[in-house]
Amino acid sequence: MKKYNLIIIGAGPAGLTASIYVSRFGIKHLVIGSFIEGRMAEANEVGNFPTEGEIGGKELIKKMEKNTKDFGAEIALDEVTKISKNKNNFLIKTMVGKEYFTKTLLLAIGAERKKLDIPGEKEFLGKGVSYCATCDGKLFTNKIVALVGGSSAAATTADYLADLAEKVYLIHSEGKLKADKIWQEKVKKNPKIEIILDNKIGELKGKNFLKAAILEKNHQEKKELKLDGVFVEMGIVPNLEIIDELGTEKDENGFIRIKKDGSTNIRGVWAAGDITDGSNNFRQIITACAEGAIAAQSIFSYLKQSQ
Amino acid sequence: MKKYNLIIIGAGPAGLTASIYVSRFGIKHLVIGSFIEGRMAEANEVGNFPTEGEIGGKELIKKMEKNTKDFGAEIALDEVTKISKNKNNFLIKTMVGKEYFTKTLLLAIGAERKKLDIPGEKEFLGKGVSYCATCDGKLFTNKIVALVGGSSAAATTADYLADLAEKVYLIHSEGKLKADKIWQEKVKKNPKIEIILDNKIGELKGKNFLKAAILEKNHQEKKELKLDGVFVEMGIVPNLEIIDELGTEKDENGFIRIKKDGSTNIRGVWAAGDITDGSNNFRQIITACAEGAIAAQSIFSYLKQSQ
Repeated sequence: MKKYNLIIIGAGPAGLTASIYVSRFGIKHLVIGSFIEGRMAEANEVGNFPTEGEIGGKELIKKMEKNTKDFGAEIALDEVTKISKNKNNFLIKTMVGKEYFTKTLLLAIGAERKKLDIPGEKEFLGKGVSYCATCDGKLFTNKIVALVGGSSAAATTADYLADLAEKVYLIHSEGKLKADKIWQEKVKKNPKIEIILDNKIGELKGKNFLKAAILEKNHQEKKELKLDGVFVEMGIVPNLEIIDELGTEKDENGFIRIKKDGSTNIRGVWAAGDITDGSNNFRQIITACAEGAIAAQSIFSYLKQSQ
Repeated sequence: MKKYNLIIIGAGPAGLTASIYVSRFGIKHLVIGSFIEGRMAEANEVGNFPTEGEIGGKELIKKMEKNTKDFGAEIALDEVTKISKNKNNFLIKTMVGKEYFTKTLLLAIGAERKKLDIPGEKEFLGKGVSYCATCDGKLFTNKIVALVGGSSAAATTADYLADLAEKVYLIHSEGKLKADKIWQEKVKKNPKIEIILDNKIGELKGKNFLKAAILEKNHQEKKELKLDGVFVEMGIVPNLEIIDELGTEKDENGFIRIKKDGSTNIRGVWAAGDITDGSNNFRQIITACAEGAIAAQSIFSYLKQSQ
């Protein structure tokens, strides 16, 4: 069985940046994950990565992948199925039946956007459907869009989109928004925002691009909303299945609580990226990278001291 | 007098990333600073920015500068000389005599590496002299280097360099290292590290590249150390002159204390990058960018609520 000083689970921006840092620190480590999955690969157009112009999420992750490999990281394109603690080490089992031992563990396993799960959602991804208003909002300047969600984040996003778009439908499945009062008032006052409560989108239609959303119930005597874009802001769900057994402490939304140095409540376990409550819960590619770097330095210092 | 919703002081990675984010949020703002100064522009070779291979600091900042401009930011290549609070606004005065009003302020004014201030230091920058072992360490694999400093960070760095280099002189001006005991023991035990206490480098010599350091006092009957590299790890000094009047709270080393969202103790003032105590005090380009993004989102939310 192979033994490592560090295993990084997850090959998104947090995991790969951490790998680059620890490679430079000379730490023997393994990255287990897949480059082609995850929120970043899903981003149609990333516009706010500071050193890039408009760039696809897949292209951006490829750049990180290349550097990770160039720095000599060992990478297993595999999936972790079980993590267990074994004295002061961790035992990792994977999909393809491999087993590894490691002294330290970095959980960079990401989170997933909550989806609508309706016909047309997949088909029009990047052609009208977006899970990231900050990334894609500008593409809908002077267009008609819908924003699905009822939280403060959803209301903020609706308000942001209203600055750009001609009209914003704010669609929420319940009879009342959950957003903070100040945000509820803002969206109610905004003449560009039309709030549709107690209703859901049941289907998305279009040709090459999205053209309409079909509501489950009538709104102003019609079920069809003509629009150019649908933004889904129903929150994200951390990918937690594999870490349940570890007992890492989580916040009220299920994200792993990290300290300033990225460490968790379990000795030898760090976390970085979307899966954590770090970076003021602003889950961006750039903040995931930074969390990966910070964790890497802390892991380096921990391993040096335990030598 | 021009009035802004936000003025960002500093055009390094924190300031420029913040500008890119707030541009996307549609916030009218001004960036005041210089691209050609600062710690990043000083980095000869940046090797751990996740989407780049080996790249010069100047080249990296140019990429950020381009995106900042492409997103439409207004930039003043100027220097702030005075900041004062005026009711709920801030008044900014600059070197060229301009005055601006702003509702919010992001301090991204950076910090400076402490220098040796000796002959040859400037001449051999990037040709043997480095202020960043993480960035440049690998270039000195199997070479002889000196590390100047006595703190835990200095000892950690010496230990890190000893993994790569053939020999490391750890040179400290005082009679005893200040590093934590565990680090003192590690460097003392490391056969590749030779500790030189109560001594200083007085001059650096070489031809195209650094060849030798001349000590102020004899070490083993000689003043000259033959070596290939000198790493300076004497800490960094925050750039604080212009913000004294604001009354922002600082940590024991003079860095601005920030909350999770990048805000300071002064309402309407945020800080990001090297100048703060954020990112677990791991002051990297990538962490500065992330701090800029986090502050940008917080400023956006603040301005939206105060509209």
